[in-house]
Amino acid sequence: MQKYIVQKYGGTSVGTPEKIKNVAGKIKSYTDRGIKVCVVVSAMGKTTDQLIDLARQITDDASDREMDMLLSTGEQVSISLLAMALHAAGTSAVSFTGSQAEVITNGMFSNAKIESINSEKLLKAFEKNDVLIVAGFQGIDKDGNITTLGRGGSDTSAVALAASLGIKDCEIYTDVDGVYTADPRVVSSPRKLSEISYDEMLELARLGAGVLHSRSVEFAKKYNINLIVRSSYNDVEGTTIKPKEDMMEKFIISGITSKNDEAKFTIRDIPDQPGIAQTLFSRLGEKNIYVDMIVQSTGKDNHATISFTVLKKDFKTVNDICESVKKELKASEVTSSQEIATVSAVGVGMLSTAGVAGRMFKVFSEHNINIEMISTSEIGISCVINEIYAELAVKALHKEFLEK
Amino acid sequence: MQKYIVQKYGGTSVGTPEKIKNVAGKIKSYTDRGIKVCVVVSAMGKTTDQLIDLARQITDDASDREMDMLLSTGEQVSISLLAMALHAAGTSAVSFTGSQAEVITNGMFSNAKIESINSEKLLKAFEKNDVLIVAGFQGIDKDGNITTLGRGGSDTSAVALAASLGIKDCEIYTDVDGVYTADPRVVSSPRKLSEISYDEMLELARLGAGVLHSRSVEFAKKYNINLIVRSSYNDVEGTTIKPKEDMMEKFIISGITSKNDEAKFTIRDIPDQPGIAQTLFSRLGEKNIYVDMIVQSTGKDNHATISFTVLKKDFKTVNDICESVKKELKASEVTSSQEIATVSAVGVGMLSTAGVAGRMFKVFSEHNINIEMISTSEIGISCVINEIYAELAVKALHKEFLEK
Repeated sequence: MQKYIVQKYGGTSVGTPEKIKNVAGKIKSYTDRGIKVCVVVSAMGKTTDQLIDLARQITDDASDREMDMLLSTGEQVSISLLAMALHAAGTSAVSFTGSQAEVITNGMFSNAKIESINSEKLLKAFEKNDVLIVAGFQGIDKDGNITTLGRGGSDTSAVALAASLGIKDCEIYTDVDGVYTADPRVVSSPRKLSEISYDEMLELARLGAGVLHSRSVEFAKKYNINLIVRSSYNDVEGTTIKPKEDMMEKFIISGITSKNDEAKFTIRDIPDQPGIAQTLFSRLGEKNIYVDMIVQSTGKDNHATISFTVLKKDFKTVNDICESVKKELKASEVTSSQEIATVSAVGVGMLSTAGVAGRMFKVFSEHNINIEMISTSEIGISCVINEIYAELAVKALHKEFLEK
Repeated sequence: MQKYIVQKYGGTSVGTPEKIKNVAGKIKSYTDRGIKVCVVVSAMGKTTDQLIDLARQITDDASDREMDMLLSTGEQVSISLLAMALHAAGTSAVSFTGSQAEVITNGMFSNAKIESINSEKLLKAFEKNDVLIVAGFQGIDKDGNITTLGRGGSDTSAVALAASLGIKDCEIYTDVDGVYTADPRVVSSPRKLSEISYDEMLELARLGAGVLHSRSVEFAKKYNINLIVRSSYNDVEGTTIKPKEDMMEKFIISGITSKNDEAKFTIRDIPDQPGIAQTLFSRLGEKNIYVDMIVQSTGKDNHATISFTVLKKDFKTVNDICESVKKELKASEVTSSQEIATVSAVGVGMLSTAGVAGRMFKVFSEHNINIEMISTSEIGISCVINEIYAELAVKALHKEFLEK
């Protein structure tokens, strides 16, 4: 039976003509083994940034439609060059823009969602070609306008193509060779995971592991696609993100992450009454503020305290909202800090394994690190601490859970 | 009644963000007067060359389909940036790729012919927008593959849009402000023509005047579109290319041209018999050699001599063919020269005005310039001379016919 695979190569993997030829060689190593490949590519290296810069020289207020029109040229250049490189290597290949592959999206310019793909047309093209190259990150709406998919878009394109073509495996080639139990820049010898479940990967992505955007993982989970993260620079086995039930080995903890792009706000001593959280968070929602952790505690005399974290870039807006909500709800004070880090342990087996939380808090305590907020999910525990202790905490937690 | 116009801006006119803003200002001066504008733009400045260079770094033998996929991104960048500039200037505008405007071509990659345009869709877009921006040089075939139109492609796109939308006037903005009676680099004070007929313009284009590619003029002639050549750098009135019968003033001679990109071949003393010309020129045709002038004379003893001109770049191939034809047809010798120039006088009134040819040859004779070949068409006379006399001949002819 004919074997198929989807592969996605990011911008750095196709950053120069030389690198594009290398990618062609890698793809050919699959077609030489009789595997047909659907390839998704991003724009070359810094192309997207250069295009954005061109637009800025025209106006600071470009319409989303025209911005998508502009940016989508980046991938179109990559797909044609990769097709040429494959032809030069003697491999049959044909390229498709998002429009040509009929990647139909909703009409949300700059952040579109894929609704369908013309898999029939693509499967027909597979009859004559060993390789189909599809521009990532782009599609068209039902009126034919070009739309781009926003952050993590090319990964999402790749997973959507796998789902649409009925292909089980989707390799995401990047500049790291897999998903690690911690950031190698922080922990000296993190372990590479050979497998991880969708939910753990989602939690890792949310908590600061930058390998994959959560959107593509969610998509893969929905359609049961095996996502394989691996390096375009070597042949090392990567990490497979797959259904929990398909996993061979299960660690309690699959990774330790930290991120410091958030700020913490606390509104103290709000006279407790129904709707106080709703007042605050609907106000934040109106301004499109992304709220990450939320902790509410009820203090003395029926007064509540709410703490939450938001992206640092929204600090000013959030501070204004908090001050006005404070007055409205007659709270005592608003405090905030930008010097925080969120350190998290992620793992499917965690909450079902007794004592993990306890072991985690003990590590903080042993290192005299004060925990400012705690939040738990089904597969992770996150602690907000002063950011100066972030590296120390990641190292200590990695040692406790992953180096024993 | 709503007024419409088509405008085309070439690569140098949109070469930088600053120039794109200038073009937006020029377009706005039309919409401010209530005129709706369909704008066709080329790729910015050297973009196409840069893309070709990228492809060369991959392979010397890129497929035409992928080359068209690559090159068509150039115009897509221009249309989006121009739309942004128009929006910033407060003008409603929307951009279309060749695919979106449904510029349907035959499937001849790199040199496609336009078959139809979805004028209904474009006219509908005019209901909401004062300006439609369409990528020049590109279309799609019936299977949705991107095709480019080859040399002069954007001008052709502009004329095709005018024809399809039923718009009478098509302005071609370029870096000169019109069609001149001679090359300003050769003749010190050439006259700018306010009008010229399609046929004269075609003859000028064929004979070396570089302003317009003959293809767009032919298209304009076929659909009776007024083509107006003018400068994107000033507001000077340009030259209108229009039906002969619509012209107000008629000169005998509308221009003197010269070109020196050709070489001359002569096969001497071919025993005359039916089919000798056919033998030679079908052989050249098989190799896709473009033959410009052909002169055949019958000499003594029923022996013929054939002279013809071809592009210098084909010199080697043509020489080989001539040598083999010489043997086959038992001709006496093949001579050739690359040091020739073709100097021409073009004008609708020419052949019907007695004595023009005589006056022309007299000018050559007065300056001791030997004429090596003469060829006449309905509206022009061309003489092949030694290229060192080309400038002198153009100046003298311009003085004789256009400065009196």
